[in-house]
Amino acid sequence: MRKTVYKTPSAESLVFNIIRNEGSANRTDLVDKTGFSKSTISLQINRLIKKGLITEFQPVGAENTIRKLQIKLLPNTGFVVGVFLGIHRLSITLFNLNMEAVKETVFDLVSVIEPQFINELIIKKIELILQQGKIDRQSLWGIGLGFPFHVDFQQGIPETPPNLPLWHQFPLKSLYEKYFSCPVLIDNDVNVMALGEGFSGIAQDERDFIFVKIGNGIGAGLFLDGRIYRGAKGSAGDIGHIAIGGESRLCHCGNIGCLETIAAAPAIASKGLEAAMTDESPLLAAILKEKNKITAKDVGDSAQRGDMFSLQIIQESGRHIGTVLAKLVNFSNPGMVVIGGGVAQSGNIFLASIREAILRRSTHLATTDLQIRYTELQEKCGPIGAGRLIIEEIFSSSMFSKTIDENLQT
Amino acid sequence: MRKTVYKTPSAESLVFNIIRNEGSANRTDLVDKTGFSKSTISLQINRLIKKGLITEFQPVGAENTIRKLQIKLLPNTGFVVGVFLGIHRLSITLFNLNMEAVKETVFDLVSVIEPQFINELIIKKIELILQQGKIDRQSLWGIGLGFPFHVDFQQGIPETPPNLPLWHQFPLKSLYEKYFSCPVLIDNDVNVMALGEGFSGIAQDERDFIFVKIGNGIGAGLFLDGRIYRGAKGSAGDIGHIAIGGESRLCHCGNIGCLETIAAAPAIASKGLEAAMTDESPLLAAILKEKNKITAKDVGDSAQRGDMFSLQIIQESGRHIGTVLAKLVNFSNPGMVVIGGGVAQSGNIFLASIREAILRRSTHLATTDLQIRYTELQEKCGPIGAGRLIIEEIFSSSMFSKTIDENLQT
Repeated sequence: MRKTVYKTPSAESLVFNIIRNEGSANRTDLVDKTGFSKSTISLQINRLIKKGLITEFQPVGAENTIRKLQIKLLPNTGFVVGVFLGIHRLSITLFNLNMEAVKETVFDLVSVIEPQFINELIIKKIELILQQGKIDRQSLWGIGLGFPFHVDFQQGIPETPPNLPLWHQFPLKSLYEKYFSCPVLIDNDVNVMALGEGFSGIAQDERDFIFVKIGNGIGAGLFLDGRIYRGAKGSAGDIGHIAIGGESRLCHCGNIGCLETIAAAPAIASKGLEAAMTDESPLLAAILKEKNKITAKDVGDSAQRGDMFSLQIIQESGRHIGTVLAKLVNFSNPGMVVIGGGVAQSGNIFLASIREAILRRSTHLATTDLQIRYTELQEKCGPIGAGRLIIEEIFSSSMFSKTIDENLQT
Repeated sequence: MRKTVYKTPSAESLVFNIIRNEGSANRTDLVDKTGFSKSTISLQINRLIKKGLITEFQPVGAENTIRKLQIKLLPNTGFVVGVFLGIHRLSITLFNLNMEAVKETVFDLVSVIEPQFINELIIKKIELILQQGKIDRQSLWGIGLGFPFHVDFQQGIPETPPNLPLWHQFPLKSLYEKYFSCPVLIDNDVNVMALGEGFSGIAQDERDFIFVKIGNGIGAGLFLDGRIYRGAKGSAGDIGHIAIGGESRLCHCGNIGCLETIAAAPAIASKGLEAAMTDESPLLAAILKEKNKITAKDVGDSAQRGDMFSLQIIQESGRHIGTVLAKLVNFSNPGMVVIGGGVAQSGNIFLASIREAILRRSTHLATTDLQIRYTELQEKCGPIGAGRLIIEEIFSSSMFSKTIDENLQT
């Protein structure tokens, strides 16, 4: 029989999380939602007030009885930091316990090849943002990080990141935990972005959705039954190396015809370069002459300006991605597909091509209510998701008491 | 914010389910596993003993102290029935609360086109098996059913079953609930089979696996994070209509090149028939002459007897299925893929072809520890899974009290 966890969440953590998730609540709500007695609820409320985690207030116009008192979080009792590392950009945001951004910083990077250097930079930037927010170390309750490669989630260690050999098994989690003396969680970029959209973005009403990041690579974060699904070995969502029939381009993974080799940013850029060099697209040719290079963004922009050849490249990429997503939609029947990442800024034509390919090849049942949308949070999706990763952990039923004991005098 | 359930399982249901899942337990185990106090545990044990659900016994050689007393389920306090309807076969098994088969019956069917007739037959057979097992109606605590088409799981109503129009929206759940006055759950065949293998078969140590049924159609049951995943609209696992690139055969769903049109039993049979009629396979030609038809099983048997042409047909089907599964393995990263259904009896060549195609096109991380196996329970997988469907429901934390109140004097 597979390992089952039988421990139940404490009344205190339940009451706190209802108040945190719902924004505010009164005693009657809490009795209804938990099934606990009035006296248990009152006991927990008094304990949480004493600890400085929540407060009571009388809503305007409401009668002055204890039943009608609203209870809400005191959000500035503690803080978490969300770190999101992209290939060319580092984003760090300081959040209070309500996940309101208190301070945020963005820093452009030339390369992320050297882990020692990058992590020292991240640590410096976290210290700086704490200073700017006037937050002492005792008020930092946790750090969540999203990195642009596969991470063993339990261990917090990167595993064979493609093209970044120095990061392989670099002890990320312990480095940050030791330095900041607080809980740290690390996940790959797409899972973190899915968390961001799932809790604070366009997918917040969905229990089941797929977040697809299309940039230099292609990956997916699976949000199933209200939580991130990581799979048996943590590699769920690894869709960039799904084979496209009839394609023969060699991928860096060693296989041929992988989706990301055919449809991600480098493929779009290289098709654009070809069109510029052969003068098939005069617009791209002019861009090449001016900048001496063509990026996927150039092709996307040109497509939005009506350049036929760029349009074709973007549509072709969307079609390939949509054809793969059609299979995954049949398989996992999500309520929404959210498209993010750099290439997601290529406009409506790109999204329309993806949508068309999904709808053409998925079953009726799987697509009846399926929404296919662009990310709402855009660049903020990463740091918000990273903050969410750690805040949901420190307030989870198994961690709640530890979090409170370590951070608050009782 | 998405709907969250805050209710915690009762101490009573937790204690009971630990004893049920682990086979037996003593007071110390129960304190360790739940985190409850000794007195809470003793209270729950006494209540459950009084209700006749559990009993205490002194293990041979153990000292005679209350701490060392083992507690186990009294399995014959109640019973459930698991019903599994295939296109040509109805299987019904009576289980006690330990999921031990008390009586089982199998009945061959000519057709399942007529829901009225089939459901009357199922009801008669359930009554018969209760009589044979000397079980009165009061001791029947629930019925689980698996049907060979998509069922709206919440409502227990079939939705547009292909080729079975009379079943569309037939009020299955309410029919059985009214007739037997007990809880009833209905799901599609593959989800039920996945439950069978996941709880009692080859996948019982896996938290994440895919069950693939290959018969007249092809479908999958997704067992993710220790439970069946049904998707936003309940159509997760619908892999039979995933498109195979380069194939143009028309499917009954209206699309072309669907996996099940290319690789399921009818496709294997029709390729076998062709080989028999053209005399390319003398063995199949002889079978055709004798029986005047060729089934997928004939092709599988011929392949196992070494017939080259049959081998090719079986391998081709396995390769197509494996190619689709490779994508789904990358996407969902299961610990195991279990192959079941009629075509799964086509021997090792078939499984080897599937395995080869999966391993060739999945990522290293997704396949390092991936097991690809045939079903262990075979035909029993269905009725066992159907029993499991209802027994896990009636003992779930939200249903436990109701189940006990309705079935036992306290």
